[in-house]
Amino acid sequence: MPKQVDHDARRTAIAQALWRVARVRGLEKVSLREVAAEAGISLGQLQHYFVNRQQLMVFAMEFMSRKNVERVTERLIAVDGTDHRARLRAIALEMLPIDEDARVGSLLNIDFLLEAARNDTLREHVRQRTAALRGLLEGQIALAVQAGDVSPDRDARAEAGLLIALADGLRTHFHLGTHTADEVVSLMDGHLDRLLGESGGRKPR
Amino acid sequence: MPKQVDHDARRTAIAQALWRVARVRGLEKVSLREVAAEAGISLGQLQHYFVNRQQLMVFAMEFMSRKNVERVTERLIAVDGTDHRARLRAIALEMLPIDEDARVGSLLNIDFLLEAARNDTLREHVRQRTAALRGLLEGQIALAVQAGDVSPDRDARAEAGLLIALADGLRTHFHLGTHTADEVVSLMDGHLDRLLGESGGRKPR
Repeated sequence: MPKQVDHDARRTAIAQALWRVARVRGLEKVSLREVAAEAGISLGQLQHYFVNRQQLMVFAMEFMSRKNVERVTERLIAVDGTDHRARLRAIALEMLPIDEDARVGSLLNIDFLLEAARNDTLREHVRQRTAALRGLLEGQIALAVQAGDVSPDRDARAEAGLLIALADGLRTHFHLGTHTADEVVSLMDGHLDRLLGESGGRKPR
Repeated sequence: MPKQVDHDARRTAIAQALWRVARVRGLEKVSLREVAAEAGISLGQLQHYFVNRQQLMVFAMEFMSRKNVERVTERLIAVDGTDHRARLRAIALEMLPIDEDARVGSLLNIDFLLEAARNDTLREHVRQRTAALRGLLEGQIALAVQAGDVSPDRDARAEAGLLIALADGLRTHFHLGTHTADEVVSLMDGHLDRLLGESGGRKPR
């Protein structure tokens, strides 16, 4: 091991170890000791970075959020800036369990939301993340309204709130086995068609 | 204590004790011993009815579901049978945390969904419950389509799936503090307006 430890790299390795352990057993049952073992370091070394479980969980969620933002950004780069449907869909799909990475992330995200529902610090963290996502969606919908792709009757802020709640609910029901991944995408597409189909003379599916 | 124990009453008392304990600490952290103490009986007496935690949880969820069905039925009785909007809204509101009872129930329901996401027996139980609710909503939407209150473009089954996912997502975000109870109701009303407003010439809000 080099004398000069790369602290960012180690933090990231610890977060990845947490995700690997949590993926199997659920976030709420993971101990710091197990995460240290999975990351191949001692408990003391881990506690040098994260003094308790909550600090580690917040870091791990932020790590996941950053990965999500990177994925959304990549998708948006590939999409024509004036194609508002494609842009909204790119963001919406990133909230759904459409591939293996997103499935693990979304299962752990459900665990995190649950723990946050009873923990003020985590709840505040979720609230900020949700507000940022809602802002992004709201801006995108407002642009689509300006371009005439979404009816001016629609309230961009309310629609953004609906989209996030819908994506979270669909995700939960995917993990419960109510809907397949394809059904989840199809239901979201139906909702987007309503949002985008009314004013443009586009035929709803 | 009477010699002749009323077993149904005792089961119900145990389920209520579980809810009281879980309300504070979260369902996943509740032990059978704590529930027995809360119900004022011994652990052995409790195990006479429920041999393990999972049996107790399934019973408690069914107990909650029955209470929900009773509440929906009461609401529907109070509503004109041809007023499809009012009937759909009655069912939808019952899925939202609109009063203290519903809030406790929905917080515990989130706990239950989480545990179910990793437990095959519980997942099967949730799947059946969701299928029953979806059937109820689908039938109600199909009636509204027949009556011309919902556009025939709409697929009743897909719309029922969307409504359930939306309600679950809104509920979670209520408990996370993203939306107040009023905002949750207002977002759901907006969604119902879209569903019911397109063909009837009703003006969307």
